Amino acid sequence: MEPLVSVRPGTVVSTWTLDCFAGRVRSTADMVSQVCDPRFINPQTGPFYVEGAEPGDTLAVHFRRITPRGARGVSTTVPLFGSLTATHFTAMLHEPLPERTWIYEIDRDAGVVRYDALDSPYQVDLPLDPMHGTVGVAPALREVRSSLAPGDWGGNMDTPEMRAGTTCYLGVNVDGALFSLGDGHARQGEGETCGVAVECAMDTELVIELIKDAPPTTWPRLEDDRYLMTTGSARPLEDAFRIAHTELVGWVRELTDLSRMDAYQLVSQTALTPVANVVDTSYTVVAKMAKRYLQGLPAMSGAHERLCRP
Amino acid sequence: MEPLVSVRPGTVVSTWTLDCFAGRVRSTADMVSQVCDPRFINPQTGPFYVEGAEPGDTLAVHFRRITPRGARGVSTTVPLFGSLTATHFTAMLHEPLPERTWIYEIDRDAGVVRYDALDSPYQVDLPLDPMHGTVGVAPALREVRSSLAPGDWGGNMDTPEMRAGTTCYLGVNVDGALFSLGDGHARQGEGETCGVAVECAMDTELVIELIKDAPPTTWPRLEDDRYLMTTGSARPLEDAFRIAHTELVGWVRELTDLSRMDAYQLVSQTALTPVANVVDTSYTVVAKMAKRYLQGLPAMSGAHERLCRP
Amino acid sequence: MEPLVSVRPGTVVSTWTLDCFAGRVRSTADMVSQVCDPRFINPQTGPFYVEGAEPGDTLAVHFRRITPRGARGVSTTVPLFGSLTATHFTAMLHEPLPERTWIYEIDRDAGVVRYDALDSPYQVDLPLDPMHGTVGVAPALREVRSSLAPGDWGGNMDTPEMRAGTTCYLGVNVDGALFSLGDGHARQGEGETCGVAVECAMDTELVIELIKDAPPTTWPRLEDDRYLMTTGSARPLEDAFRIAHTELVGWVRELTDLSRMDAYQLVSQTALTPVANVVDTSYTVVAKMAKRYLQGLPAMSGAHERLCRP
Amino acid sequence: MEPLVSVRPGTVVSTWTLDCFAGRVRSTADMVSQVCDPRFINPQTGPFYVEGAEPGDTLAVHFRRITPRGARGVSTTVPLFGSLTATHFTAMLHEPLPERTWIYEIDRDAGVVRYDALDSPYQVDLPLDPMHGTVGVAPALREVRSSLAPGDWGGNMDTPEMRAGTTCYLGVNVDGALFSLGDGHARQGEGETCGVAVECAMDTELVIELIKDAPPTTWPRLEDDRYLMTTGSARPLEDAFRIAHTELVGWVRELTDLSRMDAYQLVSQTALTPVANVVDTSYTVVAKMAKRYLQGLPAMSGAHERLCRP
Repeated sequence: MEPLVSVRPGTVVSTWTLDCFAGRVRSTADMVSQVCDPRFINPQTGPFYVEGAEPGDTLAVHFRRITPRGARGVSTTVPLFGSLTATHFTAMLHEPLPERTWIYEIDRDAGVVRYDALDSPYQVDLPLDPMHGTVGVAPALREVRSSLAPGDWGGNMDTPEMRAGTTCYLGVNVDGALFSLGDGHARQGEGETCGVAVECAMDTELVIELIKDAPPTTWPRLEDDRYLMTTGSARPLEDAFRIAHTELVGWVRELTDLSRMDAYQLVSQTALTPVANVVDTSYTVVAKMAKRYLQGLPAMSGAHERLCRP
Repeated sequence: MEPLVSVRPGTVVSTWTLDCFAGRVRSTADMVSQVCDPRFINPQTGPFYVEGAEPGDTLAVHFRRITPRGARGVSTTVPLFGSLTATHFTAMLHEPLPERTWIYEIDRDAGVVRYDALDSPYQVDLPLDPMHGTVGVAPALREVRSSLAPGDWGGNMDTPEMRAGTTCYLGVNVDGALFSLGDGHARQGEGETCGVAVECAMDTELVIELIKDAPPTTWPRLEDDRYLMTTGSARPLEDAFRIAHTELVGWVRELTDLSRMDAYQLVSQTALTPVANVVDTSYTVVAKMAKRYLQGLPAMSGAHERLCRP
Repeated sequence: MEPLVSVRPGTVVSTWTLDCFAGRVRSTADMVSQVCDPRFINPQTGPFYVEGAEPGDTLAVHFRRITPRGARGVSTTVPLFGSLTATHFTAMLHEPLPERTWIYEIDRDAGVVRYDALDSPYQVDLPLDPMHGTVGVAPALREVRSSLAPGDWGGNMDTPEMRAGTTCYLGVNVDGALFSLGDGHARQGEGETCGVAVECAMDTELVIELIKDAPPTTWPRLEDDRYLMTTGSARPLEDAFRIAHTELVGWVRELTDLSRMDAYQLVSQTALTPVANVVDTSYTVVAKMAKRYLQGLPAMSGAHERLCRP
Repeated sequence: MEPLVSVRPGTVVSTWTLDCFAGRVRSTADMVSQVCDPRFINPQTGPFYVEGAEPGDTLAVHFRRITPRGARGVSTTVPLFGSLTATHFTAMLHEPLPERTWIYEIDRDAGVVRYDALDSPYQVDLPLDPMHGTVGVAPALREVRSSLAPGDWGGNMDTPEMRAGTTCYLGVNVDGALFSLGDGHARQGEGETCGVAVECAMDTELVIELIKDAPPTTWPRLEDDRYLMTTGSARPLEDAFRIAHTELVGWVRELTDLSRMDAYQLVSQTALTPVANVVDTSYTVVAKMAKRYLQGLPAMSGAHERLCRP
C-alpha cells in the first residue's frame, strides 16, 4: 500500500479513524452482510511513512488520547464469524447463527456505553474503555495482508490493552515502517466473543518514536505504567499463548540477565494472561508482567516514560 | 476411590493437603524425576462423602481460609512437561529442557513469597496468593481420573481464582459427590507456564452446601464477591475458551432471561478471560462477568452470599 | 475392571463383541439418545488377563479373522457428537444437528455393505472391510478410562487399519495387561466423520504373544504384511500427528541405527498419514512406513511373521 | 503481482519451475539459512493471466506431465521449521534442531530417487512421484500472500496428490485468475514432516480450462481418474479436516441431490483422509471419495475427462 503521509518521529499526530464498517451500519435494521462490501471491512487510517524508519528498528507508538467521535457505537453478529459459531475455517454443517445488530449509546462525560437488549427490555451501563483493535506496520516477506489479520506486524490484535496511556512497540520490516491504525472500540470483552466489539469512529492522538540499535522486536509488545506486555497471534490458541510467553521470557532475560530457566520460572509465577481475540484469522493472547518485579529496569531504553511526558 | 470421611452440608470443614510432590522435593538439589513416583504425584485430600448429594445436584464449596502450612514453597521444571517445551503429547525431536528446582521463602505475615534465581543473585518478593490447583468431584461414566487431569468434574484446573473467598460450584455425578481437593499453590501465574506453581502444603477451611432443584451444573463455576466465573477444560485451548464462554452465555440467560443472541452480545462486551493452565492433560480457561452487570440477580439461589456469612 | 478370563500367550482366542450400542439400535426409527444409556455405550469384551504379562512388556495381538455376526450394520448421528458439528468440547450456540439412524445390509459373500439414503432413493454398495474400533489394555497411573477414549493404552482409536491380518502392539501397564476389544465396524471412512461407523457385532479370532526384553511400547503400533504403523491420540489433531511421526522416527531408529536427523528425513519422504478419527475424546492419526524401505529388518523380534503362521 | 504472460483456455502450456531454494542448495554442505534469502524462498512460475477468467469462475488445471529437470533432488532441515520441532509459532525454549542437507540421486528411467543417510551408510531407493507443492491463483480481499502459505486460493498445499494425471480446480478471485505454480517435489511423505520434500526444478505440461455458470469453488478441489478430492488449509489441523470434509459433503450433495445428513453419512463411511502438510503457515488435509460411489455422475461438467483427452 502507498503511504498516505509522512511523519517525523517525536511529532504529536492527531488523526481519526472510521469504524470497522466504514459507518455503514447505523441502526438495528442494518445487517453487515447487506450494507457492507467484504473487501472494504475494517478500513485503516494510513499508512504513515515514518521518516528514518528502517528494517530492524522498533517503532514505539504511544497513545495519548482515544475518544469516540460520535454518540453511538454499534455491534453485530456476522454469519460464520465469531468464536461460538461454525466459521469458514471451523467448518460445520450447522445453519449460521442469526445476524443481528445492537446500537450502544455512548456517554463520554459519564464514561459509559449503554447495552440495550434486542429481544427484552434489559439495559445496563458498561464502562467506556476506548481502544484500537488494529495497529500495525507493513509485514515482512513483501506480503500485503488484510486488515482483518493479526500477526507479527501487529494488525487486528483486538486487545483491550491498546488504550490511551499504552505504548505499542512494533518491529519495522520496510523503509518508513508504513504504520496504520483503525478499528476503534468503545469497549470490548476479552476474546471478542461474537467477533465484533462496540465499534465506533475515533479521534486519536499519538506520538511515534524510533528505537534503533536495540534487539529487533519480533512480535508486538505493549507497555503501560504498570505492566510490560507481549502478544502472540496464531492458531491454535495455545500457540498464541506460547508465542506471548516465550516473548515475555525473552524480554525478562534482556532486562535482568536471568538465565533462560530462571526467567521461565519467574514468568510462570507472575504472568497475567488475558485472551485478546478468539475470532480473527489468527487468535491473540497477551502476557503481562508487573514492572515492579523487574527492579525498575527500563524497557526499550525508557521509551514509554519519555513518550508519557507532556 | 473409597470415600475417606462423611460430611454434612453446612458444617465447617478444617482440613489440610499435601503439596503436589507429597513433600518429597525439599531443596534445589531434589529433582522430581528422581525423588517422586509418577503414580503418586498430586495427592488429594478426600474424597469426602457429602451426605444427601445425588446425581444432578450442585455442590457449592466455599473456601474460607487457605494458608500455607510451612515457611517454604517449591517449584520445579519436569522433563517433557510445561507449555514452552515439547511434551509427551506435543511430541518433538528436541532434547528435554533441563530439570531444575526453586525454593521460595514464604512470609505469611508480610504476605509475600520470595523468588530466588538459581543462576544469578536476582531476588524479588511476589505477593502471597494461596489457592488450590485441584478441586473436584467423581467424574461421570464410572471413570477414575488422575488428579493431574481437569474436566467437567473439576480436578486440576489450576486457576488462581480458587482462593479464599471464592465459592466453587460442581455438578454431582455420583451419590455422595466424592469431593476432594489438593495441589495448594502459594501463588501461580496465569497459564502456569512451566507447569509447576509455588507448591506447598495447605491448611484449608471450607463449607459445603448442596443445591437441589436447580439446573444441573455442567462445568465447574466459581463466584466471588465481584464476579461470576465459568471454566472450560479442553484441548486445543480455543475449545476451553468456547466451553467457558458458552457456559457464561448460558448462566447469563438463566439469570436475566436474555435471549441467546442478546446474552452472546453482553458476554462479548464484558467478559474477562484469564487463561488458567496450558500445561495439564486438558487446558483450562476462565470467563468472568462482573455481577454488577447483572442487576443484582442472585446466582445459585444466593449460595455464595449465604456461605460468606460467618 | 476385574478380568473376565485368563489367556495364555500363543493360544488362539475365538471371541465375539457386541456393537457399540449393545444391539439397541435396530431400525431407522431407533434414536441413540432414546434407546441407549450413555454409561453403557461401546461395551467391550474382556478384560482378558494375559498370563505372565508385566509392566514394561509389549503385548502383540494378531487379528486372524474379524467377521460381522449378523446381516445388518447400523450407523447414526448423535447430538453434539461428530467432527462437523458443535460438541460438548467445541461448544457453540448452534442447535444440534438432527439425530438420524441408517441401516446397512451386509452381504458377507459378496463382501459389500449397502448404503441406503434416508431422504432419497440413492443406494450404493461399499466394500466390506471389518475392523475393531476399540482395542486396548489397562492405562497407567491407576486410571479407569471410558471405552470412548483413545490414548497410549490403545482404546477407541477407530482406525480402519485394525483389520484381520494386522498385528497390534500395546505396552503393558499392569500385571496381566487386562486386554479388551470391541466396537466392531463393518467399515468406516478415515476420520469417522459423523462419529459413528457401520457398527455391528463381530466374531473375532486372535492370537496374543508377549514380547519381553524389548524397548517399552509407548504408544500403540500396528504391523501388517506391507507396513509398520504408529499411532498418536491427542487434541489438537496436529499433536496426534506429532506423536505418530515421532514414534515412527523412533521405530525407524531402533530398526536401522539411523541418526535422529537421518530417520526424521526418511520419514519425511516416505510416511503415509491417514487420519483415523476426529471425533473421540482424543483424535487419532496413523503414520505408516512401507517395510521394504527398511531393508527387511524384522520389527518386534519378528512377532508379526510368527503370528501370521497358521 | 503483475502477470507474466497471457494464456488462452485450452492451450497446452509447457513451462518449468525452479526448486524452492531457487537452485542455491547444491551439496550437503549448503545450509538454507546461509545460502538463501528468506524473501525469495519458494519462487513461483507465473502468474499467468487466463483470458476470460472472472471472479466466480472456476479454473481447471490439468497436469499432463511433471518431470524433474535434473538428476538430483535436495532436502534439508530449516531451523524452527517443520512438524517435530519448535517453530516461530509453536514457540518454545528449546535450541533449534540441527540444520542438515540431503542430496537425492534421481533416476528418471528407473523411476526412483535414492535416499542416502548422512551419518551412516544407509541407502534406499524410493519411488519417483513428481508433483507440485504450490499451485494457486490470486487470493481474494486484495491480499498478496507469500508462496509459503496455503489457503482457499490454493498456494503451498504440499499434497502428493498434485501429480500428473490430476486436475486441480481453483475458484477465481480476480480478473485473469493470476495462476502460478512451483515447488516441485520428486516425492514427499504425507505431512511433509520435516517441512522439506525432495525438492527439484520441474518441466511441466498443463492445460487450463475455465468453468463458468457453475457453483463457485470455495476451496481447491482435485480430481483424478478414481477420486474426487477436496482440500482444507487451516490451523489447528482439525479445522483443515473440517473444511475438507464439509467441502466433500457439499460436493457429494451437488452431484447426487442427497440431503445434508445423507451426504454426511456417505462421506463418513467412505472418505480417505491423507494429511498433506503439518508444517506450512496453514496445515492442509485432503479428503477423497472414490468416484464409483457416485454412480458415474460427472463432476465440474466433465472437465477432468475432457482435459485428459490427448
